[in-house]
Amino acid sequence: MAEQYWESAVSRIDDSTVRIRGYDLEELIGGLTFTSAAYLLIRGALPTPNQTKMMDAVLTAVLDYALQKPGTVAARYVMSANPNVAASLASAVLAVGKNTLAPEDTARFAIDSYKRLTESNDDAVVVAARIVAEERAAKRRIPGLGHPVFKNVDPRAEKIKTLARELGFWGPQAEFYELIHTEFRRQSGRDWIPLNDIGVMALVLAEMGFTPDETTGIAIISTLPGVVAHLTEEQNSGRPIRIVAPEDVSYDTIVRDFESDKEVAGW
Amino acid sequence: MAEQYWESAVSRIDDSTVRIRGYDLEELIGGLTFTSAAYLLIRGALPTPNQTKMMDAVLTAVLDYALQKPGTVAARYVMSANPNVAASLASAVLAVGKNTLAPEDTARFAIDSYKRLTESNDDAVVVAARIVAEERAAKRRIPGLGHPVFKNVDPRAEKIKTLARELGFWGPQAEFYELIHTEFRRQSGRDWIPLNDIGVMALVLAEMGFTPDETTGIAIISTLPGVVAHLTEEQNSGRPIRIVAPEDVSYDTIVRDFESDKEVAGW
Amino acid sequence: MAEQYWESAVSRIDDSTVRIRGYDLEELIGGLTFTSAAYLLIRGALPTPNQTKMMDAVLTAVLDYALQKPGTVAARYVMSANPNVAASLASAVLAVGKNTLAPEDTARFAIDSYKRLTESNDDAVVVAARIVAEERAAKRRIPGLGHPVFKNVDPRAEKIKTLARELGFWGPQAEFYELIHTEFRRQSGRDWIPLNDIGVMALVLAEMGFTPDETTGIAIISTLPGVVAHLTEEQNSGRPIRIVAPEDVSYDTIVRDFESDKEVAGW
Amino acid sequence: MAEQYWESAVSRIDDSTVRIRGYDLEELIGGLTFTSAAYLLIRGALPTPNQTKMMDAVLTAVLDYALQKPGTVAARYVMSANPNVAASLASAVLAVGKNTLAPEDTARFAIDSYKRLTESNDDAVVVAARIVAEERAAKRRIPGLGHPVFKNVDPRAEKIKTLARELGFWGPQAEFYELIHTEFRRQSGRDWIPLNDIGVMALVLAEMGFTPDETTGIAIISTLPGVVAHLTEEQNSGRPIRIVAPEDVSYDTIVRDFESDKEVAGW
Repeated sequence: MAEQYWESAVSRIDDSTVRIRGYDLEELIGGLTFTSAAYLLIRGALPTPNQTKMMDAVLTAVLDYALQKPGTVAARYVMSANPNVAASLASAVLAVGKNTLAPEDTARFAIDSYKRLTESNDDAVVVAARIVAEERAAKRRIPGLGHPVFKNVDPRAEKIKTLARELGFWGPQAEFYELIHTEFRRQSGRDWIPLNDIGVMALVLAEMGFTPDETTGIAIISTLPGVVAHLTEEQNSGRPIRIVAPEDVSYDTIVRDFESDKEVAGW
Repeated sequence: MAEQYWESAVSRIDDSTVRIRGYDLEELIGGLTFTSAAYLLIRGALPTPNQTKMMDAVLTAVLDYALQKPGTVAARYVMSANPNVAASLASAVLAVGKNTLAPEDTARFAIDSYKRLTESNDDAVVVAARIVAEERAAKRRIPGLGHPVFKNVDPRAEKIKTLARELGFWGPQAEFYELIHTEFRRQSGRDWIPLNDIGVMALVLAEMGFTPDETTGIAIISTLPGVVAHLTEEQNSGRPIRIVAPEDVSYDTIVRDFESDKEVAGW
Repeated sequence: MAEQYWESAVSRIDDSTVRIRGYDLEELIGGLTFTSAAYLLIRGALPTPNQTKMMDAVLTAVLDYALQKPGTVAARYVMSANPNVAASLASAVLAVGKNTLAPEDTARFAIDSYKRLTESNDDAVVVAARIVAEERAAKRRIPGLGHPVFKNVDPRAEKIKTLARELGFWGPQAEFYELIHTEFRRQSGRDWIPLNDIGVMALVLAEMGFTPDETTGIAIISTLPGVVAHLTEEQNSGRPIRIVAPEDVSYDTIVRDFESDKEVAGW
Repeated sequence: MAEQYWESAVSRIDDSTVRIRGYDLEELIGGLTFTSAAYLLIRGALPTPNQTKMMDAVLTAVLDYALQKPGTVAARYVMSANPNVAASLASAVLAVGKNTLAPEDTARFAIDSYKRLTESNDDAVVVAARIVAEERAAKRRIPGLGHPVFKNVDPRAEKIKTLARELGFWGPQAEFYELIHTEFRRQSGRDWIPLNDIGVMALVLAEMGFTPDETTGIAIISTLPGVVAHLTEEQNSGRPIRIVAPEDVSYDTIVRDFESDKEVAGW
């Protein structure tokens, strides 16, 4: 049998039936919350009630962050120039990356670290200490730690961790990450550095079986309703083209002469 | 008092408290489903249980459409070249527009049409007939009608309409749109043309108070979990750079001579 | 003969030869400027020296506009959060639309207006007056006119117009648009309203044979080198996550109680 | 003096004068080709004639690659769903990354490698051998080498290299990269693996002083005129919504029962 160029198990269309992971879409409408549907689509199986509860908590962890989230601001600038929701939301999506909102680095780090533990014969504390020492020697940040505002404890992260413990999504992988956290505080002397909200999202979603890339996808979805709300505000703001006020910018003030410089350049 | 350049009521950050539409984010985590949170963010108030139920139905109406949704295919091509979730999801977002998935045109049409009805002294059937006649004369499509697969009835649309009736989100605006639909079938003779899934999403969301732009924002969110699932498949496909197979393309086969053509062009 | 699903005449790959509009790419490298290559790709034929000269002028018309171009600002916000050039440039591209930088509306208007003139038996001034009267009655802006800074004359637009006249790219279509401009100033009494830079780009590119959509594509390309320069500045700024300073925002300050409001909502 | 939140030296607006890197924009229009303007914007100084010539060659190195460039295909899918040039071009931009078109990895590698050479007391061949051995041990690809079609020699890369040698943009950094290339062929036994077009773009642009991020920005610009041409084809194709033909997809065919599975999941 010839192999097709594409392969997919997410959904398929048979005549007039759309099957989502094998289920008739018509039955899902009204039968599933969006959160459960998202779980089904990505993980390929219906969630248990606890899985849905956990995922709802994760999806509400970073709902909005005022005009201190770069993606929201970018989206509002785009909307002011090109009043199109898709274009503007896409800009907010594109601002999810290394410096904000992407849990994937923490998820990868937690998964890799735990793998090293399971492959090692050493004690967990020893492995954690070794990992921290290596990261520090290579001057790499340990992803998931630290927050510009919260010291010691990020209350949103704690809330999710508590729920995760209750619902059974705080397993050995997350616990080993916490050991690494403790070691980091010890070795660095920065005792106040907390586990942050994106870090805890990563640990819980990885525990639920999502891949690192999928954790970022989920974080992106969680951030969009707030952006939609901001786009409505932008539309109602009465400002057609947003700028940065000249008094907030230090502009270079050199004046150059084109004709003479062109000659000097050899033209 | 000086007026600030920006204004926002979506959220704000006071010291260590993030307030979402006035509520402490810490309380919302675990206290609200994502769907309720999305409603709160966009509409500015907590939803009733019926509003959440309705919105969950709308958010699950178009969960995935296999490799027959252009945005999903675009996202997989991007992922194959640039294995980055944010970039790939953004491409899927950008494929929401005039030809697919954007309820805004239907929402605008339904709102404007109903406004004409309320401002007129004529009977609803007369106003509907006039609107249809105008659209047909201007050769404009009536948005929300027609589907490439379904004739007469789009079963997903019917499911949502039934739920909307039960839950109280099928009001006079939607009913007037249905009158227009009936008139369209009569005047065009195309009796088989159904109300489609995007059309019904538009009518229900407009009835709930969302603006046309917001209906597109919500449709975009609803489509993303499926795309995340496809991106994982793409990553696992083992194909680093997707192409279109040469046998599926009719390429122009002219061969031209650069040097002689350049001379002809005057260089 | 079976018809393929895709069709293309832009380029093709034969064994190891890439043919661009029929020419061997190897010969083009070093044999054509980028501007000439862009013309060849889009228009399908080699440009004359005058066409290249004209297009270079158009491509340099709006090189950069400091932090007063929303797309540049959006791109810098994205870069600060997700330090990735492709994601950031994409945001700048997405800010090209109705309110800034997209010549397509003017190009469409100029082409449609001129078509009306050629199909009419009336004098050009009469047709122009009629078009202006219609647009004003419908409260539509005439695209291509007006600038926030320049009154009477946009010097960049004048410079391009002068070049277009010299090089033969200011034809009857552009001249009829100018008649409409004159009529608009007469009818509106707003005598100071100039033809702007984007408007003149539209007129010249349409005269050269580019479609309205292509004029926007060309404007997008012309704007990107400046954005690349801004992204380097952003990387060197030492600010990892850009925000809007809280003192520049008027935030809503309502505090609400989640538990009691939830009860009121019926949960 | 208070420090402003933003800083920029790319352009500024004084009353009615736009200054691009210090030059009056009005003088640049008609006085500079787009390629020279791009150099000026990004590097901050007027190019010499040789620099412009070199950059034109680089900008024409990968003009188009038929429907075998994932970004072009993604852009056409987006255009078919959302007929908007900005949205579609943005998708093509987003497909520039690790697997295609981004010279930044090669540029970084070449710069870092050369730095190691200058900091070492060892012979260049020894340092090259050491670098290759390390990369091979870590199972990392050496960026810039290899091509799916061309073996031994990528003729476009050779053309650019020849020009770079003539014009003085093939310096010790590029030469050391070539030593690494030679070493790689020796150590791996894969004697046929060529320097590719993206690799040579990286080496030349780095030699000219562009940063790795900027090389990707320039590659993105170079790829867009071809995409604009493809978007016109897509608009003229008469296919409103592109799909992947069902016969090209291997779909999972499991059918599941929602109600019973829901019960099993504990609802």
